Amino acid sequence: MKAIGVERGENTPRLIEKPVPEPGEGEALMRTLRVGIDGTDFEVIEGNHGGFPEGDDHQVLGHEAVGVVEDANGTDFEEGQLVVPTVRRPPAGSNEYFERGEPDMAPPGTYLERGIDGAHGFMAEFFTSPAEYLVPIPDEFAETGILVEPMSNTVKALEHAFASRSMFDWSPETALVLGNGPLGLLTLAMLDETVDRSYCLGRRDRPDPTIDVIDELGATYVDSRETPVSEIAEVHEPVDLVYEATGYAKHAYETVDALAPNGVGVLLGIPDDWSFEIDGGRLHREIVLENKALLGSVNSHLRHFESAKESLGRLPDWFTDDIITDVFSPAEVEDALAGGDDRIKTVVEFDTL
Amino acid sequence: MKAIGVERGENTPRLIEKPVPEPGEGEALMRTLRVGIDGTDFEVIEGNHGGFPEGDDHQVLGHEAVGVVEDANGTDFEEGQLVVPTVRRPPAGSNEYFERGEPDMAPPGTYLERGIDGAHGFMAEFFTSPAEYLVPIPDEFAETGILVEPMSNTVKALEHAFASRSMFDWSPETALVLGNGPLGLLTLAMLDETVDRSYCLGRRDRPDPTIDVIDELGATYVDSRETPVSEIAEVHEPVDLVYEATGYAKHAYETVDALAPNGVGVLLGIPDDWSFEIDGGRLHREIVLENKALLGSVNSHLRHFESAKESLGRLPDWFTDDIITDVFSPAEVEDALAGGDDRIKTVVEFDTL
Repeated sequence: MKAIGVERGENTPRLIEKPVPEPGEGEALMRTLRVGIDGTDFEVIEGNHGGFPEGDDHQVLGHEAVGVVEDANGTDFEEGQLVVPTVRRPPAGSNEYFERGEPDMAPPGTYLERGIDGAHGFMAEFFTSPAEYLVPIPDEFAETGILVEPMSNTVKALEHAFASRSMFDWSPETALVLGNGPLGLLTLAMLDETVDRSYCLGRRDRPDPTIDVIDELGATYVDSRETPVSEIAEVHEPVDLVYEATGYAKHAYETVDALAPNGVGVLLGIPDDWSFEIDGGRLHREIVLENKALLGSVNSHLRHFESAKESLGRLPDWFTDDIITDVFSPAEVEDALAGGDDRIKTVVEFDTL
Repeated sequence: MKAIGVERGENTPRLIEKPVPEPGEGEALMRTLRVGIDGTDFEVIEGNHGGFPEGDDHQVLGHEAVGVVEDANGTDFEEGQLVVPTVRRPPAGSNEYFERGEPDMAPPGTYLERGIDGAHGFMAEFFTSPAEYLVPIPDEFAETGILVEPMSNTVKALEHAFASRSMFDWSPETALVLGNGPLGLLTLAMLDETVDRSYCLGRRDRPDPTIDVIDELGATYVDSRETPVSEIAEVHEPVDLVYEATGYAKHAYETVDALAPNGVGVLLGIPDDWSFEIDGGRLHREIVLENKALLGSVNSHLRHFESAKESLGRLPDWFTDDIITDVFSPAEVEDALAGGDDRIKTVVEFDTL
């Protein structure tokens, strides 16, 4: 079968030929429909994130997938059922986090991630997975279901954010999304049912497809070159919720300035080391006197995927149409992974329903 | 009546003579038994915190009090009932935070604080209070009830901390308290029923009464001059919960290093402005990849006082005996507010039961 991966020692993804995988006990075999590409894929290609599967000379990419059950192999699935696979898998011997269904809370070093860290991804004509890591989705999500995985990360992050504010009366009216990539835009759309006013930070000039989506959602585009995060409270308004999806380290600290009293900032970006000066005294004081919170959130588990699926069903069609900008065949691997500001979500399509 | 306060333009607390206050509608009159002294009182004396009651030339100190209802004045209290007053009061016109019983969530500028900011405190032979801000306590807490107010701050902080970890399986085994003042030691004792192992940070040499209490509680004393907060994970172990009560700004950021994966740090200190360099990229990344949380927490509301009262009843007698080290009469005002490392909790006693 055809697969898209990187060879050890190279930084160029290519089409490779592999045998169709055989499902083990408790596993199903899926025929792949679509796989989405995100920033993590580029980090894997560059060798900056994760690691190759042990003993293999290549890593198959892809962690945002939709497949059709081709061989249920004795699992509870029906053949022909559409599914989205989750990403984390237990290492040899498993551990408590997987046993209780919370792989997203497993610390670094205690999990593998398909397509990212130590396990092959889904960017291939077929993939296998234990049935317990498959989320059934309806046929109408054949094209959009690749959004369930990124959306599940937002579901988890917001769940933790709301839990942190659950001991008092908190109804967020305003939200600020830092980052206008696919995850930022998906989050902006998901928050549309929760808050009255929302803002999305980017650093692009109009005309730009992401700014068009921000406008269409009725949100306010904030150009970080004109209005830094630390000035958003003053220029626009303090916000109840900040969702950081830039990986720009200073945003974690500037979030405190952007927040209204009793607000919460949830951080999802993964920056490199970077030392800089902050007014640590003032920030610490404001966190305390205004009961603010900062939470980190990574990955998601099955329940978040289920909730993301419901959330996807509530997004308007124009939005998913606008978000999925580019669809390539596996043979177009070079184009598919070329990136570019004119794209929002790029997809590799292996097959259709 | 006698009261202890500071005159405008002075930084020396003194005994002053004032008329016995008259309770307004819905207010009771209390005869004061004891008032505790804490770090905030010293900040008020120095003029670094809060402000004088509008139009008055003095500020009566004290926000940790136990009183006896002297005149119920038509409220539901019985005369002779022991009470602890809460601290925050609504400004003119009140606001939504007070209306829903969450004055602790009111942002700066939307509340007065008795003995601290814009309202007289309880360090006087008598005080009045609306009945809704009084927590009844049993007679056996006549001497120790001054601990209910500081403990209520910990109740709130821990409540928010646990809520932030409520969306996954979290049972903290280890806690680190930053600060060996009365609030730090009270928190260490309160956490004794929650965690298996606890640590308390100070910067004192043995013999020291606070280190004796730490030892007696079975906790581990960490001398910050030998082991900075950022090295505690390595030297001892990463901890699930950090409680910051030092007001030392760098501790807010070093807390991230001290935390185990999925841990939470709750900040209560109130530092001044202070700029310094941090590895903001690494800290941001660790917060995300290890699902860590930092929460600020200030003040407390009636429910937290009720819970603190229950908690006080569970503390061992030796502990409260060891914590309340010094009891002065109002005439000894100068001694009472002299401070000193040989003291833990200092109390001014106006009367006994």
